[in-house]
Amino acid sequence: MRLGASDAWSLLLTADHGVLATVHAERGVDAVPVVFAVDGDRIVLPVDTVKPKATTRLQRLDNLAKDPRCALLVDHYDDDWSALWWVRVSGSASVVDGRHPALTRFPAYEETGAVAATIVLEPTAVTGWRAI
Amino acid sequence: MRLGASDAWSLLLTADHGVLATVHAERGVDAVPVVFAVDGDRIVLPVDTVKPKATTRLQRLDNLAKDPRCALLVDHYDDDWSALWWVRVSGSASVVDGRHPALTRFPAYEETGAVAATIVLEPTAVTGWRAI
Repeated sequence: MRLGASDAWSLLLTADHGVLATVHAERGVDAVPVVFAVDGDRIVLPVDTVKPKATTRLQRLDNLAKDPRCALLVDHYDDDWSALWWVRVSGSASVVDGRHPALTRFPAYEETGAVAATIVLEPTAVTGWRAI
Repeated sequence: MRLGASDAWSLLLTADHGVLATVHAERGVDAVPVVFAVDGDRIVLPVDTVKPKATTRLQRLDNLAKDPRCALLVDHYDDDWSALWWVRVSGSASVVDGRHPALTRFPAYEETGAVAATIVLEPTAVTGWRAI
């Protein structure tokens, strides 16, 4: 059921993608799929130049500039509901230039320039749940 | 790349789970995995009694009572990034008693009492993206 912090971090270390939710003034919230890496007790997320984008200006960066509070949800879905689990990292994000070294775990990010900036999520709470 | 409304709805109809993001006064946002069904131009999500919960009072319901704005993100992840897609439904949610008929698509919800209430999400915007 409810996961302790160490179990939650262990699951985060096995994962590489999730959903980032940010605050949006009019819509209340936004949510976008992301890849990520764990760097010690922080989460790093790429602002990449690899995946095709509709615009070069990402709404998530506008949202975080106005309100740095956000949440990363990592979840495992399965038609067998006894195998479900999820981990949520709530915290505050800042954006730094360039590619964080932890992001080289993704082969697509090995190339110079593939990651323009890195979102660094400082957790204030890590919670999680497992069906069994 | 950017999906039109009809393509986005077509993808929603092929899916059955996603992430619901809601507004939280202190944390800014919350995010939780959900299952859902499409009912015409609305999305319905169960408040079930089937999956084990840490508490009977769900934070998502508290959040929606204070601010009904929310977003459902449905995404397909694949190690082959050319297969990525996502759809986001932004809107406003209300909660009604009992199980919406569309939720019987989930075998676990066939039993009487399995769904205590239904969250009804009225979309204000449906957007999406596909890598190719």
